[in-house]
Amino acid sequence: MMSDRGVDAVVAVAPENTFYLAGVFIRTQVSIRDRIAGVIWPSGDAPTMLVCNIEESLARTESSIADIQTYVEFAQDPMEVLARVIRARGLERSVLGIESRYLSVEQMTILTRDLPDASLVSIDRHMDMVRASKTTGEIERIAAAYQLTEAAIATAWGLSSAGDTERVVANRMTQVMLELGADGIRHMTLTAGENTVHPHATPGDRSLRRGDTVLTDVGVYLNGFASDMARMGIVEGPDARQSREYAVYREAYLDLIQHIEPGMRALDAYARCGSRLRRSGYDLGLPHVGHGVSRRGGHEYPMLEPRNEATLEPGMLLAVEPGFRPRDDQRYHIEDLVLVTETGGEILTDVASTAEMITIRG
Amino acid sequence: MMSDRGVDAVVAVAPENTFYLAGVFIRTQVSIRDRIAGVIWPSGDAPTMLVCNIEESLARTESSIADIQTYVEFAQDPMEVLARVIRARGLERSVLGIESRYLSVEQMTILTRDLPDASLVSIDRHMDMVRASKTTGEIERIAAAYQLTEAAIATAWGLSSAGDTERVVANRMTQVMLELGADGIRHMTLTAGENTVHPHATPGDRSLRRGDTVLTDVGVYLNGFASDMARMGIVEGPDARQSREYAVYREAYLDLIQHIEPGMRALDAYARCGSRLRRSGYDLGLPHVGHGVSRRGGHEYPMLEPRNEATLEPGMLLAVEPGFRPRDDQRYHIEDLVLVTETGGEILTDVASTAEMITIRG
Repeated sequence: MMSDRGVDAVVAVAPENTFYLAGVFIRTQVSIRDRIAGVIWPSGDAPTMLVCNIEESLARTESSIADIQTYVEFAQDPMEVLARVIRARGLERSVLGIESRYLSVEQMTILTRDLPDASLVSIDRHMDMVRASKTTGEIERIAAAYQLTEAAIATAWGLSSAGDTERVVANRMTQVMLELGADGIRHMTLTAGENTVHPHATPGDRSLRRGDTVLTDVGVYLNGFASDMARMGIVEGPDARQSREYAVYREAYLDLIQHIEPGMRALDAYARCGSRLRRSGYDLGLPHVGHGVSRRGGHEYPMLEPRNEATLEPGMLLAVEPGFRPRDDQRYHIEDLVLVTETGGEILTDVASTAEMITIRG
Repeated sequence: MMSDRGVDAVVAVAPENTFYLAGVFIRTQVSIRDRIAGVIWPSGDAPTMLVCNIEESLARTESSIADIQTYVEFAQDPMEVLARVIRARGLERSVLGIESRYLSVEQMTILTRDLPDASLVSIDRHMDMVRASKTTGEIERIAAAYQLTEAAIATAWGLSSAGDTERVVANRMTQVMLELGADGIRHMTLTAGENTVHPHATPGDRSLRRGDTVLTDVGVYLNGFASDMARMGIVEGPDARQSREYAVYREAYLDLIQHIEPGMRALDAYARCGSRLRRSGYDLGLPHVGHGVSRRGGHEYPMLEPRNEATLEPGMLLAVEPGFRPRDDQRYHIEDLVLVTETGGEILTDVASTAEMITIRG
C-alpha cells in the first residue's frame, strides 16, 4: 500500500487505524480527542507507537509494537512529540501518509510547522481499503461477536412479553450479552410500535403491546471486536399488513444477500435492492443498504451506497442493512454479517431465523 | 461570547457543542464521524440545525431548535450543505466562529472553498468556557447521574465477594445501574490487585482475592447526561501498608476538595495536591488532578493541570481525581463531583463514604 501511494511512512492517529496497526484499542483516544495515540510505520521497517503515559501500561501489555514512545499530557503537546518521533526515525524529509479526514486543522498546523521539509499526503482512503480486507482471525472474532449478539437477542426476547417497557427488554438484552461474555455494549436501540421510526432512540418507558413490532439495532464488544446487527420482533401477530410489509422487505433483503459476489459494485448492490422494493411499490428508507464492518463496529469502506463504484472483493466483511419505512409510524430493519468469498457471499449469522419476525409473548 | 470573540455567528459541529447548542445528542455523530450534525447560530438571531436525514426525526423530537435542515448521506457532502445553509442565512461574508480543534483538514478545505468571502476564526476555547458554566438544570441532571452511579457501586459491591471475577463484579454493577434507570454505561473499568495499575483495562477473568484492593472508574448516562466517578474497595483488610497509602492519598484528596473556591487557579489546585503528597514522600500519578465535567462525561475545560492558569468560577462542575500509584503493582483512585459556588466548593457526591475503602466480603 505504501509503495502504491508513494509514501515513505504511514503516520496514523485515527482510532480505527491505530487499533489496526498496533493491535491495541486505546479507548480514551475516542472519548478524549486530544489524547492522541498513533503509529509511525516506515516502509519496510519496524513501527513506533506513541501514546500518553497514562496508557503506556496498556500499550506495553497488548500492542504488537515493541517500540512504545510516550508523552505527558499538558506538559507536552502530543503533536509536537509526534513530530519529534518522526524526526527521531529519520523521516523529517520524507513523504508521510497522514489522515486528512481525521487530523484537525489545529493538529495539522503543528505538524506542518514542526516538519517543514516533509511532504504530507492523505492516506485515509488507502487505509480504508487496507482495513477492508480482513484476515481469518479478524473474521472469526467479528463473527463471534455477531453470533453472541444473535443468541442474546433470542434469549432475552424469549424472556420478554407484552407489558415490559422498551427499557426493561433492552436491559435484559444487556444482561444476557454480558453473561455470555461480552466486554460491554457498543450501542443499544430497542423501539416498539410507532417508535420504530426513530433509528437511534434510547429505549424508553413505552410498554410493548399486542400487535407491536419491536426493532433492535444493537452491538457488543467481544474480546475488543464489535458487532452491529438488527432484528425484528412482533408481540403476537403479525397482522396482515405487517406480514405483507415484512415479507416484501425480507424478500428484497435476502435477494441482495444472495447476489453478493466479488466484482459486484457497491452501487449495484444499492440499485438491486432499491429496484426490488420499487417493484412492490416502496422506496428504500436509508441512503445505503449496508457497509463494511470495522473491528470496532463503525461504518467503513465499502459503503453500499448509490454513488460508490468500489467493487466487492474476497475477504471483505459486510453488514447488510437496507432501510424500509413503508409508513410514518412503522420501520423495519434487519442486519446480518456477510463475508465476500472467492465465489459469492457467505452469511455468518443465522439469516434463516429472520424468515418471520421473532415472536414475543402477548 | 460572540461579541467578545468578534464573530457574527457560531458554526459548531463538534458533538459536545452540537449537544450544548441544540439540546439533542446525536449519537451516530460520534461513531460515524462523517455524519456531521451541526448548529449555525447567528448573533442575536435564531439558530439553524443541520443533521443527516436519518437523524431528522430525533432532532425534530428532541431539539430546542425549530429550524432543522437536512442532507442525504452519500448523495450530498455534509460540508457542502453546511456551506449552503450558511449562505442561505446570509452569512457568506461574515466572521464565522469555527472549531479548528475538531474540523478535519479535509472538512476545512471544503468550507474555505465554498465560503471564499467568509472569515473563519477558531471558537473552540470560547465554546469550552461557555459550556463550563453550568445552569441549575445541568447541575441537577449531572449530579443525578453521579448519585445513581454511587448507589449502584455500593449495592453491587455489597453483593460481591472474594472468588468473583472482575467481570462478574462489573456485570453486576451494570445490571444495578440499568435497574436504577441508567440509559446505558459510558465506561466501565474494574480492576483488582496488581491490575489496578492499568487505568483503562477491560474487566477480566482475574478473581478477587482476600487482601486485594478493587478500583472502579465508571460512568453511566442518565437522561442523556453522564457521570464519571471512581471508588476503591478492599476484599477484607486492608493491611497496614494499604491502610497507610490510602490514608495519605485520601488526606491529599480531601484537602484539595476542601480548598476549591472561586478564583483558585487550576494550576494551584494541581500544585496543592502534589505538595501534600510529596510531604509524605510520594508523587502524583496522573498529569492532572481533575477536570471540568461535560454533559457527556468527557474531560473539558478547566483541566486541573500544572500549566493551566484558568481560574475557577462559580457554576463550574469539577470531577476531582488525583492519581496515586505508590508502587508498580498498586494504584489508588477516587473521583467525586464538586460544584464551584460563590464561596467555595459544594460536594455533590458522598465523599464521606470514601473515608475508608469499601469493604467487599472475603
